[in-house]
Amino acid sequence: QIDSARLWGSIHETAQFGATAKGGVRRLTLSSEDKQVRDWFRKACEDAGLDVHTDALGSQFGLRKGRDMSKPPVGIGSHLDTQPTGGKYDGILGTLGALEVIRTLNDAGIETEAPICIVNWTNEEGSRFAPAMMASAAYVGDFTTDDILSRKDVDGTTVGQALDSIGYRGEKPVGFQKLGCFVELHIEQGPILEAEGKTIGVVDSGQGVLWYDGKISGFESHAGSTPMPLRRDALATLSEIVLAMEAIAKKHGPNAVGTIGEAVIANPSRNVIPGEIAFTMDCRSADGAIMDALDRDLRAAIAEIAARRKVEVKIDLVWRKPPTHFDPKLIAAVENAAKTLGYSSRRITSGAGHDACNLNTVMPAAMVFVPCKDGVSHNELEDATQPDCAAGTNVLMHTVLAIAGV
Amino acid sequence: QIDSARLWGSIHETAQFGATAKGGVRRLTLSSEDKQVRDWFRKACEDAGLDVHTDALGSQFGLRKGRDMSKPPVGIGSHLDTQPTGGKYDGILGTLGALEVIRTLNDAGIETEAPICIVNWTNEEGSRFAPAMMASAAYVGDFTTDDILSRKDVDGTTVGQALDSIGYRGEKPVGFQKLGCFVELHIEQGPILEAEGKTIGVVDSGQGVLWYDGKISGFESHAGSTPMPLRRDALATLSEIVLAMEAIAKKHGPNAVGTIGEAVIANPSRNVIPGEIAFTMDCRSADGAIMDALDRDLRAAIAEIAARRKVEVKIDLVWRKPPTHFDPKLIAAVENAAKTLGYSSRRITSGAGHDACNLNTVMPAAMVFVPCKDGVSHNELEDATQPDCAAGTNVLMHTVLAIAGV
Ligand SMILES: NC(=O)NCCC(=O)O
Ligand SMILES: NC(=O)NCCC(=O)O
Repeated sequence: QIDSARLWGSIHETAQFGATAKGGVRRLTLSSEDKQVRDWFRKACEDAGLDVHTDALGSQFGLRKGRDMSKPPVGIGSHLDTQPTGGKYDGILGTLGALEVIRTLNDAGIETEAPICIVNWTNEEGSRFAPAMMASAAYVGDFTTDDILSRKDVDGTTVGQALDSIGYRGEKPVGFQKLGCFVELHIEQGPILEAEGKTIGVVDSGQGVLWYDGKISGFESHAGSTPMPLRRDALATLSEIVLAMEAIAKKHGPNAVGTIGEAVIANPSRNVIPGEIAFTMDCRSADGAIMDALDRDLRAAIAEIAARRKVEVKIDLVWRKPPTHFDPKLIAAVENAAKTLGYSSRRITSGAGHDACNLNTVMPAAMVFVPCKDGVSHNELEDATQPDCAAGTNVLMHTVLAIAGV
Repeated sequence: QIDSARLWGSIHETAQFGATAKGGVRRLTLSSEDKQVRDWFRKACEDAGLDVHTDALGSQFGLRKGRDMSKPPVGIGSHLDTQPTGGKYDGILGTLGALEVIRTLNDAGIETEAPICIVNWTNEEGSRFAPAMMASAAYVGDFTTDDILSRKDVDGTTVGQALDSIGYRGEKPVGFQKLGCFVELHIEQGPILEAEGKTIGVVDSGQGVLWYDGKISGFESHAGSTPMPLRRDALATLSEIVLAMEAIAKKHGPNAVGTIGEAVIANPSRNVIPGEIAFTMDCRSADGAIMDALDRDLRAAIAEIAARRKVEVKIDLVWRKPPTHFDPKLIAAVENAAKTLGYSSRRITSGAGHDACNLNTVMPAAMVFVPCKDGVSHNELEDATQPDCAAGTNVLMHTVLAIAGV
C-alpha cells in the first residue's frame, strides 16, 4: 500500500506552482510556473535515488534500477503542465503517483527484476503549443524533434525558445530513454465512474482526435449603415459553424464530441461587423469510421454556410490521432491489480487524449482511471478524493510489480 | 466654389497619420496617430487665421470672426479619429471640408454676419471608449465631463490619462464655445446614393442606437471527455444569440439592424469548452417603437437561450440614443444649396450616428451626405470620389453662407 497522506501532500504542495484564486492551477507548459514544478520534481526524483535526465524536448525521466538491467524499464508517469483554467489532478496525479510508487518501493526495500522509469512528459495539454501530447508524440516518432522545436505559441515563441528560457532543453536526444511498456494513472475527466460508484476505470481504449485551424474572411463594415441582407458577417458565419458542429457531434453521438474552444475576431469594434475570425476545432470519437464521418459532415456544412453567406472559410487539419486500443495483456494486469486490491472497477474508454495513447503505438501501454467530481476537468474546480487517488496509485504500483517482476 | 484639389490634398496628406497597408487609416481616438493629425489640424486652423482652442475633452475649435460677434457662430465640422480598420473619409471629409470652407472664404475675402466655428470632436467612433460621439454628447450635457474622463479602454487607460498622454486635455471647459447651429458633411456610409446616382444626401433623420455589454457564464470543461448533453458551452450560447439578433433585426427590417462586433473568450484553449465570454451588441432603428421592440425581443430571446442551455447571460444597456429628427429649416437650407448648385439630391436617413445628432438635441442641426463606394465604411477599402467630396463641401459652404449671412 502506498502512503496516501504523502501522495496527497505532494499533490497539494506542487499545486502552489501556478495556484489560481478559484483553487485551480494555471501552469502552461514551459512557463515559469512549469519550471518551478519541474525543479521540485527533479529534486524529488534525486532524493528518491533515481537516475534523472531530461531530453531535448524537456521531458523528465527518473530511472530506478532493476535487478536485471538488460530488461527494458517499465515506464509510468504523466504530465505536470495544466490548462489555462486547469485543476490540481489532471496529469499531476499520474506523475506524482508514479513518484509515490517509487518512494513506497524504496521504503519497503522492494527490488524489481526490470527497472522502473518515471516520466514527466512535456506539453501534454496542447494549450500553449499544438499538438497535445507533444513530447510523447515525438518520442514515438510521429514528429521530428526539429519540427516540434519550431512550433509557436500565440505570441510567436517557439518550443525551443521556451525550453531555453526555463533551462529545460535537456542534453539527451528524444527517445534516448528506452521503455518496455507504459502505464499511466489519471483522473477520468468524465462522469462515468462517479455515476456508477466504481473506484477504478480499466482503460481499454481512447478516442481519436481531429484538430483543425480555421479562418473566416468576411467583410468589415458599418454596424449602423450596412443593411442586414448586404452583410458578410464573420461572426454570424462562425455562429452557424459552432451550431452545425454541435448538431453533427450529437447526430453521431453518443460516441462523438465536437468543440470550438478558440475564436478571435481581428480588430474588434462595437460598431463594426466582424470581418475576420481565426478559430480552432476539436472533434473526437473512439470509432475511426465516425471520425471520418465527422470530418466529412463538418466540411460539407462549412462549405454550405460559407457559400450561402458569401464568406470565405478555410479549414486546415493540423492533427489527426486515430483511436487507441490499449494492450490486452496490460489491460488484464490493471484489471487484476484492481481485483486483488478489492476495488470495484469497470472497463472504460478515455474521452481525453493521453501520452499513453502515443506510447501504445510502439509498445504495450495501458491506463488506470479514478473518478473525479462531477466528471469536471480542464476547470479550476476539478476535484478528486484522497482515497480514490490512493486507490489508483495502489493499482498502478501492483500493476508495475506484476509487469516488472519482484 | 471650393478648391477641390486643395481639399483632396488635405485628405490624402492627413491619411498618412495611421496609414495601413491596405490603404485605410487606423487612428484610434487619443492615440499617437490622433495626436499627429490634431497637431496638423491646429496648425492649419492657425494658418487660416482662426482663433483656436481645445476643450477639457480634447475637442478642437477654430473660430472665424463674423461682422456681428453678438451672433452665435455657425458650427461645422466632424471628427478625425477612425475605427481600427477605418478609411480615409469617415469624419475626415467633414472636418477637412469645414477647413476648406474657411480657406475658400478667406481666399475670396468673404465676410459673414455670424462667426463660423469649425470643430474636430473627440472620439466620435466609440471604438476605443464608449459611447460613440462621446465629446459632443458631453457638450450637449448627456454626460458630465468627469464621467467621460473616467471611461476606460480595454487596457484600463482612462480618457483623462489618454488626453494627458498626447497633451490634448484643453484649458477650456466643455461647452465653453457656444454654437448657434451645426452642419456636418459626411460620406453616407451606406449604399443608397450610389445606387440611385444621387450626388447629395439631404439628411433628415438618424437612427437611434442601443449599445449593450454582455457576459456569458457557462462552465469550462474538457473538450474530449464531456458528453455533448452535459455541456454548458458559452460559445454555443453566444452563437445562438448572434443568430437570434440577426433574425430579430431582419424581422423588424428593413428599418432595423443588429450587430455583435466584439466577443472575447476568457482563457481560450483548443481543448476546453469555452466557459466565459464578454461581448457587445449594437442595435439600431430610425423608429423609436422598433428600437423598443428590438430591445424586448432580444432580451426575451437571450433569456430563453440562457435557460435552455443552463448558462447565465447578463446584458447591460450602456447607451441609448433615441432617433434623430434634424431641424426642418436647416434641412431646407441644405436642400436649397444642393439645388442652387445643380447637384442631384434626395432626402435620406443616416444609418450611422454622428456628432450632429447629439448637437441637434440642443440646437438646430443638419447634415450633408455624399456617396461612398459600394456603401462601404468602417473598412480600410472605404472610398469616395474627388468630385463628390468637392460637391458636398460646396453644399456645406453654401448652406453656411445662407445661415451665417453674407
Ligand atoms: N488528459 C488531457 O486532458 N489531455 C489533454 C489533451 C486532450 O485530450 O485534449
Ligand atoms: N459615423 C460613424 O461611423 N460614427 C460612428 C458611430 C456609430 O454610428 O457607430
